[in-house]
Amino acid sequence: MPTPAKTYEALLSELREISLLTYTSAVLGWDEQTQLPRKAAGFRGDQLSLLAKLAHERLVSDRLNELLSALESSPFVADGDSDAAVNVRETRRAVDRERKLPSSLVEELARVGPLAQQAWVGARKASDFSEFAPWLERILKLKRQQAECLGPTVHPYDALLDEFEPGDTAADITAVFESLRGPLVDLVGRIAGSGRKGKGSLLEGDFPRAGQEALSREAAKAIGFDFDRGRLDVSAHPFCTHLGPFDTRLTNRYNERHFAGSFFGVMHEAGHGLYQQGLPTDHFGTPRGEYVSMGIHESQSRLWENFVGRRRSFWRFFYPRVQATFPCTARISEDDWHRAVNHVEPGFIRVEADEATYNLHILLRFELETALIAGSLSVQDLPGAWNEKMKAYLGLTPPDDARGVLQDIHWAGGGVGYFPTYTLGNLYAAQFFEKAQSDLGDLDASFAQGEFAPLLGWLRRNIHEEGKRFTARKLVVRVTGKPLSAAPLLAHLVGNAREIYGV
Amino acid sequence: MPTPAKTYEALLSELREISLLTYTSAVLGWDEQTQLPRKAAGFRGDQLSLLAKLAHERLVSDRLNELLSALESSPFVADGDSDAAVNVRETRRAVDRERKLPSSLVEELARVGPLAQQAWVGARKASDFSEFAPWLERILKLKRQQAECLGPTVHPYDALLDEFEPGDTAADITAVFESLRGPLVDLVGRIAGSGRKGKGSLLEGDFPRAGQEALSREAAKAIGFDFDRGRLDVSAHPFCTHLGPFDTRLTNRYNERHFAGSFFGVMHEAGHGLYQQGLPTDHFGTPRGEYVSMGIHESQSRLWENFVGRRRSFWRFFYPRVQATFPCTARISEDDWHRAVNHVEPGFIRVEADEATYNLHILLRFELETALIAGSLSVQDLPGAWNEKMKAYLGLTPPDDARGVLQDIHWAGGGVGYFPTYTLGNLYAAQFFEKAQSDLGDLDASFAQGEFAPLLGWLRRNIHEEGKRFTARKLVVRVTGKPLSAAPLLAHLVGNAREIYGV
Repeated sequence: MPTPAKTYEALLSELREISLLTYTSAVLGWDEQTQLPRKAAGFRGDQLSLLAKLAHERLVSDRLNELLSALESSPFVADGDSDAAVNVRETRRAVDRERKLPSSLVEELARVGPLAQQAWVGARKASDFSEFAPWLERILKLKRQQAECLGPTVHPYDALLDEFEPGDTAADITAVFESLRGPLVDLVGRIAGSGRKGKGSLLEGDFPRAGQEALSREAAKAIGFDFDRGRLDVSAHPFCTHLGPFDTRLTNRYNERHFAGSFFGVMHEAGHGLYQQGLPTDHFGTPRGEYVSMGIHESQSRLWENFVGRRRSFWRFFYPRVQATFPCTARISEDDWHRAVNHVEPGFIRVEADEATYNLHILLRFELETALIAGSLSVQDLPGAWNEKMKAYLGLTPPDDARGVLQDIHWAGGGVGYFPTYTLGNLYAAQFFEKAQSDLGDLDASFAQGEFAPLLGWLRRNIHEEGKRFTARKLVVRVTGKPLSAAPLLAHLVGNAREIYGV
Repeated sequence: MPTPAKTYEALLSELREISLLTYTSAVLGWDEQTQLPRKAAGFRGDQLSLLAKLAHERLVSDRLNELLSALESSPFVADGDSDAAVNVRETRRAVDRERKLPSSLVEELARVGPLAQQAWVGARKASDFSEFAPWLERILKLKRQQAECLGPTVHPYDALLDEFEPGDTAADITAVFESLRGPLVDLVGRIAGSGRKGKGSLLEGDFPRAGQEALSREAAKAIGFDFDRGRLDVSAHPFCTHLGPFDTRLTNRYNERHFAGSFFGVMHEAGHGLYQQGLPTDHFGTPRGEYVSMGIHESQSRLWENFVGRRRSFWRFFYPRVQATFPCTARISEDDWHRAVNHVEPGFIRVEADEATYNLHILLRFELETALIAGSLSVQDLPGAWNEKMKAYLGLTPPDDARGVLQDIHWAGGGVGYFPTYTLGNLYAAQFFEKAQSDLGDLDASFAQGEFAPLLGWLRRNIHEEGKRFTARKLVVRVTGKPLSAAPLLAHLVGNAREIYGV
């Protein structure tokens, strides 16, 4: 009988081979979004299906299951936080999820998802929710079935959330979101009533693409993104993808009237990229080398985008470069620019929202999708519920479905349980950044000189290098000494509002 | 028992699934050469190995073998040229090759090849053949073993050649090469003695990269390359690769002092690309949808590069575009330009050779590698034999090994049997082009107007759409009514020499 150490070696080797396949899919996916000739999409889809099938077969194989079972009953993994224990525990989680889902359900979701997305595109174009409603019903029914297969859980939503935010529950999220909601609604209302305008229009001008690309690259490099282990390309929607231990790719898009869009786009994606580049490469292909959760991933992108990229000291360093690149900014002071990129104003569209109101868009979606999955809200009543919450949280009533309930693609694609990770990201980012400041002292002096290595080093040591060793909730306690709370994000937003709007 | 039609369907479905894997490797390979971050090569190598292993396992599986056997004994494939018969015959060929090679030998070749290439790099740098000699011995020994496993054949070379030029033998190639050699040596000698200079230096100038890229794209598009089904990118060495039925990618490189390099580079690669884009997509993933041989593939690239791209009527169309793009060409007449791009002059280096002398470089290599494999030439005697042939064919003696026997990477990587396909390409190109002219009438009038559809249509109908239905030798008889001969290529080169040099 093989020793536990030998069995563990066999597990690692199996996991690494599976990762060769899954990261091959990542290459195909990146290529699809950045390079693929117009007519080549069909064959690419067939390739991705086959690779997904091959990876799935390996993950649910009896062999992998036997290796895990042998290790689970051995003292080898007794210490729950050792590398081996983490790999066994998290592989078991992943394997169980795969084994619990009948392939008929997986195939049905894969079949209906694209059709529902197509219907969503048409419905949004026509701004008519009733066109999409029957498809949303079908998707929700399948997601409830999925939750049932994965359960039992206290709330059916918990089983879906677990895919993105392992270990978290609807109740966990509700607790922290509830404590954020009241103060944030109040803050946004006070800003709106302050009478001071945000000068958002300052951000419009003549920003040639070549300059935006150069500054995107410069910003990513300045904060520590390693181009020997990554790239920056163009795609319809910015993203960050991980193709291997030494291959992290960012994309961005460029609107020649609006530089801020590409700038915060690259800061966000490079934030994701820094996390990927900071994961321990020795453990690549095993959970110990993977990211904690979508919320923690998002915390890294939001930290660089919002806590660094919107900070006055950052612009002390970077604004001269912007002015040297774009003559149209000669007339705008650094102070006005900083104010403009921190402009807060309620709007209908989530993806266009500022740092503060963004979270209210998320709270609304989280509340609605938990109710939809539980069945306490019907699809028919969804548009009304959406509009009521928009009025209550942001003081606005969407003029039509396209700018209301139909604006996001997530639900159409079966992405139920994903929305909260965006605001979890902001919450974790705020709590981490507060602690980093307290550990490192004055960060502004280094930011003003374009020096971000102290902050990145802190994130590497405390977060990146740990891989998937801890759940998000455990990690935040270990790093900051406190459970996740809304207080740091609120303090940050209140501080900004005071500085920019004097409220 | 399933009907032959059902069995055939199962074969097609298996072949298509294998092709999803092999074309996934093609995506990874393209990405490696055009996009990969500097430090990401190791992991990419692991991915490619795994995919090769998975495809190999499917190709040598008992299931595929049984499907083939069942079909081979059925009347379903009685007509040797039907789609089904072609697919069964060619899949059997590929399967037998894979099954005959012991995996130990495949692994040894995969292991020693990169080491020998490394040694070759060092030896070439030091210009010292003796550093490379022991590695070449090892490679030749493995290639002889490979030939033995694949045999029996009349000449051990035949088994190796068969990978690149199915059905051809060393004797077949010797026959046609021998009839080319004498007249070509004579022609090249007469040109050298003509006293007329080729004005090759006219091609040097100031050619900014953006202009070269734009003209590369324009040239590829003009001759019919479909950018909705393909791309053009940059790599260290130009190539064409096929990633799927609607995804053919070309690369090029740009030397800002020398436009002709990138121009003939893109014509060559786009010629390969037009062939790929002309293969029948309905049969994609099966032999019926694949190219005939490397020689036929090369005939398509050489036809567009040399028979179209160096033609006076082509420059009537394209030279005004060159002059509009590059001011440095204002002083050069169309006539001088046409003369310059057709300059013939013996040199040491194959990849820098002109259209005529190129073939003598190939004849030399073919003669040497057949003798090496047969054992009638020893590795020790190779440099001497190389230099003797250089003197005899091109009137030159290489000043050192780097510019002689060490100039090509092919042998180091185990590529024995590949060289003749270059000149076979020229021979087939000449014979096809001669026939196309006779079928289509005056092509020059249409070329001068940038009209290449008649020629491309002829190639599509006669060559591309046939896929792998016939061997190269059969195809040329069907298309031109005659077996492969050196006469059309010699007539073309002699005609050029008369026009340019008056000899």
